[in-house]
Amino acid sequence: MTREKSAHREKLSGVFAPMTTPFDDQGKILLDKMALNVQKLNGSRLRGYLVLGTNGEFRSLSTPESIDLLRTVVKTASPDKVIMAGTGSESTSVSIELCHQAAEAGAHYGSLITPFFFAKKMSDSALINHFIQVAERSPIPVLLYNNPGVTGITMSTTVIKEVSSHPKIAGMKDSSPGNLSAYILNAQPGFYLLAGSANFFFTGLLMGAIGGVLSLANAFPERCCRLYDFGVARNLEEGRELQFHLMKINQMVSGKYGVAGVKATMDFVGFYGGPTRSPLTSLTVDEKKKLREGLVGAGLLKGQ
Amino acid sequence: MTREKSAHREKLSGVFAPMTTPFDDQGKILLDKMALNVQKLNGSRLRGYLVLGTNGEFRSLSTPESIDLLRTVVKTASPDKVIMAGTGSESTSVSIELCHQAAEAGAHYGSLITPFFFAKKMSDSALINHFIQVAERSPIPVLLYNNPGVTGITMSTTVIKEVSSHPKIAGMKDSSPGNLSAYILNAQPGFYLLAGSANFFFTGLLMGAIGGVLSLANAFPERCCRLYDFGVARNLEEGRELQFHLMKINQMVSGKYGVAGVKATMDFVGFYGGPTRSPLTSLTVDEKKKLREGLVGAGLLKGQ
Amino acid sequence: MTREKSAHREKLSGVFAPMTTPFDDQGKILLDKMALNVQKLNGSRLRGYLVLGTNGEFRSLSTPESIDLLRTVVKTASPDKVIMAGTGSESTSVSIELCHQAAEAGAHYGSLITPFFFAKKMSDSALINHFIQVAERSPIPVLLYNNPGVTGITMSTTVIKEVSSHPKIAGMKDSSPGNLSAYILNAQPGFYLLAGSANFFFTGLLMGAIGGVLSLANAFPERCCRLYDFGVARNLEEGRELQFHLMKINQMVSGKYGVAGVKATMDFVGFYGGPTRSPLTSLTVDEKKKLREGLVGAGLLKGQ
Amino acid sequence: MTREKSAHREKLSGVFAPMTTPFDDQGKILLDKMALNVQKLNGSRLRGYLVLGTNGEFRSLSTPESIDLLRTVVKTASPDKVIMAGTGSESTSVSIELCHQAAEAGAHYGSLITPFFFAKKMSDSALINHFIQVAERSPIPVLLYNNPGVTGITMSTTVIKEVSSHPKIAGMKDSSPGNLSAYILNAQPGFYLLAGSANFFFTGLLMGAIGGVLSLANAFPERCCRLYDFGVARNLEEGRELQFHLMKINQMVSGKYGVAGVKATMDFVGFYGGPTRSPLTSLTVDEKKKLREGLVGAGLLKGQ
Repeated sequence: MTREKSAHREKLSGVFAPMTTPFDDQGKILLDKMALNVQKLNGSRLRGYLVLGTNGEFRSLSTPESIDLLRTVVKTASPDKVIMAGTGSESTSVSIELCHQAAEAGAHYGSLITPFFFAKKMSDSALINHFIQVAERSPIPVLLYNNPGVTGITMSTTVIKEVSSHPKIAGMKDSSPGNLSAYILNAQPGFYLLAGSANFFFTGLLMGAIGGVLSLANAFPERCCRLYDFGVARNLEEGRELQFHLMKINQMVSGKYGVAGVKATMDFVGFYGGPTRSPLTSLTVDEKKKLREGLVGAGLLKGQ
Repeated sequence: MTREKSAHREKLSGVFAPMTTPFDDQGKILLDKMALNVQKLNGSRLRGYLVLGTNGEFRSLSTPESIDLLRTVVKTASPDKVIMAGTGSESTSVSIELCHQAAEAGAHYGSLITPFFFAKKMSDSALINHFIQVAERSPIPVLLYNNPGVTGITMSTTVIKEVSSHPKIAGMKDSSPGNLSAYILNAQPGFYLLAGSANFFFTGLLMGAIGGVLSLANAFPERCCRLYDFGVARNLEEGRELQFHLMKINQMVSGKYGVAGVKATMDFVGFYGGPTRSPLTSLTVDEKKKLREGLVGAGLLKGQ
Repeated sequence: MTREKSAHREKLSGVFAPMTTPFDDQGKILLDKMALNVQKLNGSRLRGYLVLGTNGEFRSLSTPESIDLLRTVVKTASPDKVIMAGTGSESTSVSIELCHQAAEAGAHYGSLITPFFFAKKMSDSALINHFIQVAERSPIPVLLYNNPGVTGITMSTTVIKEVSSHPKIAGMKDSSPGNLSAYILNAQPGFYLLAGSANFFFTGLLMGAIGGVLSLANAFPERCCRLYDFGVARNLEEGRELQFHLMKINQMVSGKYGVAGVKATMDFVGFYGGPTRSPLTSLTVDEKKKLREGLVGAGLLKGQ
Repeated sequence: MTREKSAHREKLSGVFAPMTTPFDDQGKILLDKMALNVQKLNGSRLRGYLVLGTNGEFRSLSTPESIDLLRTVVKTASPDKVIMAGTGSESTSVSIELCHQAAEAGAHYGSLITPFFFAKKMSDSALINHFIQVAERSPIPVLLYNNPGVTGITMSTTVIKEVSSHPKIAGMKDSSPGNLSAYILNAQPGFYLLAGSANFFFTGLLMGAIGGVLSLANAFPERCCRLYDFGVARNLEEGRELQFHLMKINQMVSGKYGVAGVKATMDFVGFYGGPTRSPLTSLTVDEKKKLREGLVGAGLLKGQ
């Protein structure tokens, strides 16, 4: 392993929040609310922020909007926070362009979702070629992003074997159910795995993942960091208990309502969540009520 | 039905070519080749052109690239050709923006693919709301675009029932297998259906579709127009025969190779096809050889 | 084409009812109700009956139950009716055994659903081998049965090309959306296609199918036979109208409620439908009321 | 928790082999080979045997064949081994019948795969009703079997919440990727989870599963039992290492080749694997050679 690659370990170890994008009721981006959320999270033990990811509704934004948002986060983040930006497009050339824009805006890593518009044609060799070409020409290192629930493509272990030794490919955020161990097993040294869900964060850490990008970290950063601590400390009893606690919350929030649930929860605990951008729909008054009751029941909010 | 809606019938009756986007070997767009293709097709009986669709690899382009391409087509198209432009994004607001840009560039219709990044959340009401909001604020009328093979979402007949009476929603291009008749049955008067594949163009016309957007029209416009004629004339015997002939070609070209097959075929018959944009891969030398042999065998190319 | 194969044309031309299986409230089979339904249908112009198909809940029956049911139909059917029996199991050897049992019970054709328990392993060559082995050793000719909505496997045109010239393979019942024309195109002469749904029966006949196995024929045999007549007579206007009428009913009945909807409709019009077998659930009182209203609205039932 | 339920803990704690079914080249079952395999495994530390499961190609057998096979295993198994039998059919009534037959043949547990022929209609309430009805009327306790890779249905946590307190429902074998922790979290006390794959056996044990049904146990029972030991002992370092080792083998064997790979591997190490039953295809000579090389490379076989 090169020195270059091992340097990523320190930068990627810990919990990242996949930041949501604040909109007003007309769907306009509220940069000041974005800054507010970042300022609040600056005080947490989070390792950093992922901007322009799935929870950030990145494919619902125009390119200029994306850059403004990223700039706001970079400007507001405290210097110890590591910033990843979604730079994965459907083509290699546009992805490279987005990596350049993200680098200029100050991001430390680009996050490359697998292209999926032509999903049936995305052979292993097509994906390998894509990731390596982008990494080669990107001014910043990149992370792969595996999310078959959205893309319909499950990254194969063949792709991981091939690209994981590349000096500019730092690792992968894995949001797929049940594959994290297989990726760890098949990765070359110096390729770092991040759990893309609280549902398998603790077991992932036990098996060799070094961090997580957890939607719950937008609302409950400290609990997520504590689970990370238990994983690092190999504290099985407390880790297992907290893992189950966070899974229960995840079931209520992301599992049931997706991004809209994350945003509603953020509103409950003092962040700005706000509405999702159309056609994605926000929670109804009834759904919010039920979610609140669930979170009160789980001891996360005070009831009235 | 309003006068406004019935005017669409004339504009949408016939065959449209879903234009491919010409790239060089480095993935740069070649606007002059685009113009060349349009000039050649201007001499055909095609009703018009769809720019920035699936065959145009529209999600692989940046927004400025898309506009340049569309402008080139508008500038080069003969005045009798109707021009549709892909303007469907993952969000309502960006789709509206793209409709404005397409209108300024001179397109006559915007084509709205169903948003699918958050496919599991795209309920009927979310989609209805999206299409109506975009139609309301778009300066040009729109067509829906139903392609579950790409989006994972099959437009429901409930959506069609709801949106098909909207004065700014002219119809739908349907690329789904086996649903065209159901959409015709459930549409309000003045909502026009276009077959999105040669595979069901003839039967679609018999059941009430008024046109087609056929990838084969990029290479074989006259044969596609002849099939349209047979459909309009209710010529069952010749229509059935030509339908089978085009299906056989479709099987070899799009069915097996997708956009890359369409481009290779265009190269064979004197258009500029060229490479696809990475990560989508072009045909290998061997695949091109086999495809050529198949087309020779089908009587579409001269052998050597 | 051999004489043997062309003889199938006469036997398979027309409409077949995929018979439902009558149960009492405890899930016991009612052979007398089965006989009653057959007697009523004997008076219709139906070409024959498919016993032990999807609408017959065949995978919910034990083998002895299946044989009793088939025997009852054979015994009751008028001599002009052609009888097909579902004989497709997950293995080649058990399918052969079922063909023997069906032949002994008096069925004229065995219907072979694609094995799908190990769907990912069902390569074209595995399926070709299966169908040919069963056909070779079956005492009666067989029909393939293509229903990807249930099996997850879409029969490939390669399979059709390979097996369609076999003297013991008479044709295929195709219930897949949008593939019927492709199968007709790729079949050898003497391989007969039956539409597996009223939704594409008329267009299927125009393209070369010779019959249909239509769940609506259980309740409305005459309307289905009339659509067949329009198809044979190439009567486009009336055929199109009746096609749409039956699609509208299909949407309400099978499309929405599946087998349970077919059974409820049978009860409405004087056949014995009765409950489905657990875990498949029958219509609720509310659902029955709505379905009845829909059928009254479509002019198929008298309101009260 | 009742005494009845806690008694299951002892019986289900450990590793089970999902027995393959031995066939000759004509697809005939070889009961003597079945007995031979059982005798060899009797000497291992396996907790017991699952007969008539997915690896047993149970849906490819006739009912009389299934009973003969089960009887052979019961007769040959040493008295300390716990025997589960696949008794899940597509209907509630046939499943009950199979539970009776399995009980008479001497099985200790029935294993109920989710019915999936009418997958789209298998609502939570339909499944809950099915499992409870079968459990009520079965003479032996039952285990649920969750295998979405085969059935297309992922057991919901709602179903688990509802049925897990039933005194006759002992637990579930979970072969789904990534859901085991969620089932543990949502189960009532006295409902025991078994990992259905070596890929998540170790982490499953850490989170609360009490055993596993592992295809590799057919060929490498001792390694599987050792992984169980590490899990029980909370030995993270050695457990993690052995977990990765077994995953690597699983990738080569089941992952790539399914049941046919398991059988070939059994042949390599002195059990009777033999061919699969048509249409499932056995490994080619080439595939066997590659598999053998892989297993030699992993230190499981001696090379030549």
